[in-house]
Amino acid sequence: MSVVQPFAATFRREAPGHLVASEVVLQPSGAAGRVLERVRRAFIGRRIASAHELQERIGPVKGLAVFASDNISSSAYASEEIMRVLMAAGAGALALTMPLTIAIVVVLAIVVISYQQTIRAYPSGGGSYIVANDNLGRLPGLVAAAALLTDYVLTVAVSIAAGVAALTSIVPGLFDLRVAIGVGFVVALCLGNLRGIRESANLFAIPTYVYLVAIYGLLAFGLLRFATGTLPSYVPPPNPLAGEATMGLSVLLVLRAFASGSVALTGTEAVANGVPAFSPPESRHAGMVLIMMGIFFGSIFLGISFLAAQIGVVPDPSEQETVISQITRTLVGAGTPYHVLIQVSTALLLVLAANTAFADFPRLSSILGRDQWMPRQFAFRGDRLAFSTGIVVLSVLASVLIVAFGGSVTNLIPLYTVGVFVAFTLSQSGMVRHWWRLRDAQAGWRWRAALNGAGALATASVAIIVGIAKFALGAWIILVLIPLLIALMWAIGRHYAHLEKELATPWAPGTLPARRTRVVVPVSRMDRPTLEALAYAHSLSDDVTAVHVTDDRDELARIQERWETWGGPVRLVILESPYRALVAPLLAYLDASEALEPADSTTVVLPEFVPRHSWEYLLHNQTALRLKLRLFFRPRTVVVDVPYHVGIT
Amino acid sequence: MSVVQPFAATFRREAPGHLVASEVVLQPSGAAGRVLERVRRAFIGRRIASAHELQERIGPVKGLAVFASDNISSSAYASEEIMRVLMAAGAGALALTMPLTIAIVVVLAIVVISYQQTIRAYPSGGGSYIVANDNLGRLPGLVAAAALLTDYVLTVAVSIAAGVAALTSIVPGLFDLRVAIGVGFVVALCLGNLRGIRESANLFAIPTYVYLVAIYGLLAFGLLRFATGTLPSYVPPPNPLAGEATMGLSVLLVLRAFASGSVALTGTEAVANGVPAFSPPESRHAGMVLIMMGIFFGSIFLGISFLAAQIGVVPDPSEQETVISQITRTLVGAGTPYHVLIQVSTALLLVLAANTAFADFPRLSSILGRDQWMPRQFAFRGDRLAFSTGIVVLSVLASVLIVAFGGSVTNLIPLYTVGVFVAFTLSQSGMVRHWWRLRDAQAGWRWRAALNGAGALATASVAIIVGIAKFALGAWIILVLIPLLIALMWAIGRHYAHLEKELATPWAPGTLPARRTRVVVPVSRMDRPTLEALAYAHSLSDDVTAVHVTDDRDELARIQERWETWGGPVRLVILESPYRALVAPLLAYLDASEALEPADSTTVVLPEFVPRHSWEYLLHNQTALRLKLRLFFRPRTVVVDVPYHVGIT
Repeated sequence: MSVVQPFAATFRREAPGHLVASEVVLQPSGAAGRVLERVRRAFIGRRIASAHELQERIGPVKGLAVFASDNISSSAYASEEIMRVLMAAGAGALALTMPLTIAIVVVLAIVVISYQQTIRAYPSGGGSYIVANDNLGRLPGLVAAAALLTDYVLTVAVSIAAGVAALTSIVPGLFDLRVAIGVGFVVALCLGNLRGIRESANLFAIPTYVYLVAIYGLLAFGLLRFATGTLPSYVPPPNPLAGEATMGLSVLLVLRAFASGSVALTGTEAVANGVPAFSPPESRHAGMVLIMMGIFFGSIFLGISFLAAQIGVVPDPSEQETVISQITRTLVGAGTPYHVLIQVSTALLLVLAANTAFADFPRLSSILGRDQWMPRQFAFRGDRLAFSTGIVVLSVLASVLIVAFGGSVTNLIPLYTVGVFVAFTLSQSGMVRHWWRLRDAQAGWRWRAALNGAGALATASVAIIVGIAKFALGAWIILVLIPLLIALMWAIGRHYAHLEKELATPWAPGTLPARRTRVVVPVSRMDRPTLEALAYAHSLSDDVTAVHVTDDRDELARIQERWETWGGPVRLVILESPYRALVAPLLAYLDASEALEPADSTTVVLPEFVPRHSWEYLLHNQTALRLKLRLFFRPRTVVVDVPYHVGIT
Repeated sequence: MSVVQPFAATFRREAPGHLVASEVVLQPSGAAGRVLERVRRAFIGRRIASAHELQERIGPVKGLAVFASDNISSSAYASEEIMRVLMAAGAGALALTMPLTIAIVVVLAIVVISYQQTIRAYPSGGGSYIVANDNLGRLPGLVAAAALLTDYVLTVAVSIAAGVAALTSIVPGLFDLRVAIGVGFVVALCLGNLRGIRESANLFAIPTYVYLVAIYGLLAFGLLRFATGTLPSYVPPPNPLAGEATMGLSVLLVLRAFASGSVALTGTEAVANGVPAFSPPESRHAGMVLIMMGIFFGSIFLGISFLAAQIGVVPDPSEQETVISQITRTLVGAGTPYHVLIQVSTALLLVLAANTAFADFPRLSSILGRDQWMPRQFAFRGDRLAFSTGIVVLSVLASVLIVAFGGSVTNLIPLYTVGVFVAFTLSQSGMVRHWWRLRDAQAGWRWRAALNGAGALATASVAIIVGIAKFALGAWIILVLIPLLIALMWAIGRHYAHLEKELATPWAPGTLPARRTRVVVPVSRMDRPTLEALAYAHSLSDDVTAVHVTDDRDELARIQERWETWGGPVRLVILESPYRALVAPLLAYLDASEALEPADSTTVVLPEFVPRHSWEYLLHNQTALRLKLRLFFRPRTVVVDVPYHVGIT
């Protein structure tokens, strides 16, 4: 006699009453299921157990690549977007590009310094939502969260659109396909992140540093030519649609140009979010990366704006060629290897920047899910430990934006940055409050608060400028969406909180109260499924009532006769239904019985017939399904499905 | 203290254990439900109790109107369809119209005489399905049924299309809307039949007799003018697209013309179907109606063909004006009251003819549903005692045909009549077999069998002619559809029969066997719904196991601690799921438990949380639903839903 160990194949016994499931339990049984599983595994990769979460720590060199790529990538379009706005007042207005660039770099410097303190105060990650929620309260926290969520979606849309623009600058034939290519990139990022590419810092490092080397080489070459007075003359794009002056140079226009350029600050938050990922000393490494980021980005931004002005670049109104491409082409010639290198590394860096949002959005929404401001699904991790729901939602929203705005960076820019600066302001204000709270414990809290106060002031000003200057151009969409999102999250939070109270444990601990239930079995005909259900019900309770609903008096005699043979000790009640309805009389019977003699619950035992093939369901009455649906919404009603599988006894 | 009588409001006590539900139980409770109910009642009318079925018996006068309208209405297009085919060989070929009409009337006479016997032999209704099934067997019965079902659909499509054509002949502006008007008529008939207009014989009588009087008046006037040599010269339609001779006069063409004209026999079966509706002596009255029908129809058909030939009418190739309208217009002038009377009464009669199919199709499909060749839904009667499923299915199919064939009678005709003649042949052959069986009991069985044999021969010949002559024009569709329909009905019948055996009562009568079940409660958190489910499970059985699936070792300790406080006597098993799956480990646990220690069934008690608003479902995990679906397909698994309704205790 062999010893049967059915548990051994699928479970490992950890302790008494504690079993650990092996991966075997996840194998699908059907052929279709197995094919689907293979496709899934091919795209997503093998499952990862929760215990195997990779806790790779990174130093400042890789850290710069992972967390600063989003911000640095803005240099690919920041100068251009300033120039595009100024163009409306004629090519002469482009002279303002350089002063506006300097103003934005000053704001960036303030934010970088201000954020140094956040990094030190929140070594476990200091995103705007956490800082605002901790120090200012739940509503400011939600405002920051809503602002950030919209902004992450725009980061993906704008970065991908700019990356595609970098590519179409060297392959103009792809220009008409830019929407499709953009959505293709989003899908690729989605699949990659469902696999969990977040962790591979090495992959990130290469394009970032290639871009830095390439762009610094270009700037150095350009500045050398400028210093030696040998700057080549500007080569306009192949189809120079002359941008015509459509309006005078007004304060609003200058503010708009400033607002467009302020995309330069997006991505700054990523470093503060990522502190725990750095190798110790975490805060110091993160702080170093933040400063390096500021220096790299600031210098590239200034350099590009300077060269564009000196060469006399005019942005291409058809958006077929980027400003960086025009500068490169003028300096080194169109289609030269260096031109291709600049464009390809820019495109790669921008895709990487979009990928940052693919880490940030799911993480923030998982925190919001955990804090019950968003559906709990956002907090669950998929096969590969990634927050699958957040990744898929982000991909869908970003794709919708790319399609809706025709894949144009310039059309998307007015929506961008409103959210960033709202979040910055709340985060910095939160830090001021933070220092105020610690005023007794923390030396130098005054100057720390002052520093963050300056940051809050600067970012609040930019937020207001962006909101006003770009309101009519599209920022209003975000200013409508953010409050709606807040209201939605507030409603969800209230629902969960309310429920928590409702679902509190109801009776004294230590015992389970006895429950008395009335057992009713609807009987349509005396067949095997019905008899199985009756036998089951009878083994649950001694007090079972079978109910037969009919409109046919002839049939009535037949069932009563069969009942005497088969019904055993169970009582039969006939409900005659002159209008042929089946569900309504049964429900009325349950109501009347309950009113006559209350019980803790009514248990309805349903004989359920499961045919061999699914198409056969069409041949059987949907009455049982309708009854179940109605009973589901009836209070204190327990539904018991006793299935009878044809061919399996 | 008042006496509580909760049953009195909704039920009447008929006998011990036999309650009769009042209409009150059918009142919907929600506001939306009440509005829907009102709309329903406005369109369909009040519910009718099964006991109130109206058994109106009718005499031969009304019987002619009710059962002969389908056949007589064919006179509106039979001559025209013969002429349209002949036209292909040039206007000269129209000389064959009269001889072909005579041939068809001869066939009709044979069928009418042959059917006299069916009426006598089947006083409870002798449709082709019943006669073929009774005498020839199940497969011939199904062939007849399939042929009839397709033909009823075509009766609706052709009659409605012809009725619309009668109207557009006097209001040409409606011609472009003919598809929409046709579908509108179908919808009106559908609603009318859901209300149950079948019974109102009075309504039917008027248009039939108006048509008879009007058309005989026209024929008499025309024949008088012919006899006196004063027939007016032919007035062609306003846009006479001259029909060009496209082919020579071949045997095939003549056969086609004959096949088109044989629509004249459709509707003959209705009288045999309807025998039980006549007042006694039923068979004699039905036989009288059948003979009257043959005489009326035959004389009108001959008269129209004759006048058309004498006047020299040429059918309008654009189908804008019918031949009858051209004859009438030529004789009495366009737009005269008499012209309008003829056209309107023709249209009404044709709609009535379509209505005959609305009685026949649902009745035949209800018989097929009862005999388990079609889904049982077809045998159920709706609020107004009508077979709702059949009515709706017929309406949808007929509408599809009208739309697909652009509302053209001529396009639909090739599909029509194949089925009729197949059914006739089977019915008449069945009668031959019937007499053979009764050869010892029935005097004169020989000449009776010979009569039906002649009918079978005549109708079989026509069936073959129609099938061959019209095969390429569209009859092939029907010759493909009928076998498919038979195969489908056969498969359904096999399924039901097979099931009947499978579901036979399994054990000896007089007792219900005891059933041992293993009770398992999946527990996700220790909240009120879970505790209610545990208390319920514990009151069902002393041997309950709670199972908690988790991937979080920290949470594990917490639940074990809470279990000691709240779990009572129930045993807790922890299933650790390293890959975060919830459903699969639970199913593997059930399988392993069952393998270790078999029971009659596994009972899974599910805590079910019912939120107040349906949108709130989105915020709660669909895990329970997924689990239920998987468990539903697991053999020997009983699922118990213990709902907890928020806000209702």
